[in-house]
Amino acid sequence: MTLIQWLDYAGVAVFALSGGITAARKRLDPVGFALIGTVTGIGGGTLRDLLLDRPVYWITQWEYLVITVLAAWVVFFWGRFAPRPARPVRWSRLLDWADAVGLSVFALIGAQAALSAGANGFIAVVMGMMTASFGGLLRDILCNEIPMILHREIYASAAAAGAAVYVLGLRAGWPHDPTLAAGAGTALALRGLGITRGWHLPAYQGETPHNP
Amino acid sequence: MTLIQWLDYAGVAVFALSGGITAARKRLDPVGFALIGTVTGIGGGTLRDLLLDRPVYWITQWEYLVITVLAAWVVFFWGRFAPRPARPVRWSRLLDWADAVGLSVFALIGAQAALSAGANGFIAVVMGMMTASFGGLLRDILCNEIPMILHREIYASAAAAGAAVYVLGLRAGWPHDPTLAAGAGTALALRGLGITRGWHLPAYQGETPHNP
Amino acid sequence: MTLIQWLDYAGVAVFALSGGITAARKRLDPVGFALIGTVTGIGGGTLRDLLLDRPVYWITQWEYLVITVLAAWVVFFWGRFAPRPARPVRWSRLLDWADAVGLSVFALIGAQAALSAGANGFIAVVMGMMTASFGGLLRDILCNEIPMILHREIYASAAAAGAAVYVLGLRAGWPHDPTLAAGAGTALALRGLGITRGWHLPAYQGETPHNP
Repeated sequence: MTLIQWLDYAGVAVFALSGGITAARKRLDPVGFALIGTVTGIGGGTLRDLLLDRPVYWITQWEYLVITVLAAWVVFFWGRFAPRPARPVRWSRLLDWADAVGLSVFALIGAQAALSAGANGFIAVVMGMMTASFGGLLRDILCNEIPMILHREIYASAAAAGAAVYVLGLRAGWPHDPTLAAGAGTALALRGLGITRGWHLPAYQGETPHNP
Repeated sequence: MTLIQWLDYAGVAVFALSGGITAARKRLDPVGFALIGTVTGIGGGTLRDLLLDRPVYWITQWEYLVITVLAAWVVFFWGRFAPRPARPVRWSRLLDWADAVGLSVFALIGAQAALSAGANGFIAVVMGMMTASFGGLLRDILCNEIPMILHREIYASAAAAGAAVYVLGLRAGWPHDPTLAAGAGTALALRGLGITRGWHLPAYQGETPHNP
Repeated sequence: MTLIQWLDYAGVAVFALSGGITAARKRLDPVGFALIGTVTGIGGGTLRDLLLDRPVYWITQWEYLVITVLAAWVVFFWGRFAPRPARPVRWSRLLDWADAVGLSVFALIGAQAALSAGANGFIAVVMGMMTASFGGLLRDILCNEIPMILHREIYASAAAAGAAVYVLGLRAGWPHDPTLAAGAGTALALRGLGITRGWHLPAYQGETPHNP
């Protein structure tokens, strides 16, 4: 099994954990945890495969669903049985970094899948961004929140930048694996600046459009 | 036409009625009723077919759409023309049971479709649950409510249990039709305990995760 | 390039502008604008292609994505750099008409695509309505608003009526291009009555269903 395969499993697990944490905020039951965790973990890749007209990957590689369900349940049972800490643990920061790794891996896997399905470079960047961020988007829609990727720090843009480095690097004739690593590193670094420094893109600053 | 075909039509109609009742709560117009009713009735099967890479069933069997639109309009015109009852009718209870039948039928149809498309047993259970519950999920998302399956009594879990009985029964060498009936009966009984006794799975009880 | 191709580009651009205006209301960043604009512009056609089991059109014709991203960014930068007008411009009215053109074109393109994929007339009408209105539906779901098509003036019904004129006209043996124009004209006229006169379908007027 290759490194990227391991990172893919890890990314799916981390995304499912973040789904589990959202489920905990909503105080759902184990089925709700499994559902939100799974949607967050595999949503992006599912949409990618549907749009590229490829077989949806987890239909045959069903270990992905096992991973997402177990990851979500870890959160559920941790909350139920773990001793209460003296002061609230700042899980979010830890999770932010794990999520950043997932984001980077998924962006590159998505772009790679699009190229190998014959899509052009621009579509590959879009697919990378979508694979990386669509699961979280679905998670937020299901939990009736404004999607995080629409109003937070550098997120989808980090995925797009990483995928773009990969696509442009390949076009420039760089060797494959280092280019992949450079793309993932770019995405991780940019997202990291979002986490540590609060870097974000400028929000709309014009007048607010009104209905007549 | 087989019994399961009739039950399938009935399930689609009942789900569309529940969509119509949601549309009535939001005081929508006939097009809104048709849309919500249709999405609720066929949403689960549509997602199943897309994920399994099968042709979407209602594109050729378009009578399904006729059923969903008519069922939703029954609610619309009933509300407009039926005499007001002396005291509010408790439709919800009646509908809950009809919905439970739909849930059970759809769970088994979904699992059956997945197996016949070559999926393994675990995926078949997931597909059964999805076919049974995704239409209602879409209905709630469209109407901007937190999806019912995330926070109510035994629902998706009943569908999953019914599909699991079917899958495991087949694997144990049971004859097909009785196994199908046993699966549907399991789902119906569990959902019934949710309706009559308020059975539900335990909700998350740990500390609420906060953002830093 | 044919007229309908040009109108298709224009429709996608107009829908993306309306997505950009929604993004401006939510004060999103450029990535949010690009995402909402793109989803609004291509969402309907994407769903149509997935349901009809055709290759998703913008995977190969990627100029569509370029159009949607640029259109959304026009709104972003306009709001940032354009001089503030003395009194608020009533963009909405202008946009309503542009949106009405997009609605009409998309309804007919959707119906045409369904017929050419072998679907029957009823499904073609549904696909026309869906192609025309699903992008806006996704836009509203992403921004956590109750979808406009569920509670506003004649909208999806105008698209359905236009597609129906086209389907029935072809069945009656009318020549193709004038029938297409008649369908688009019907949709545009009906939507126009919604915009100028506030025509709408009657909302549900019965008692509000309650949960027990």
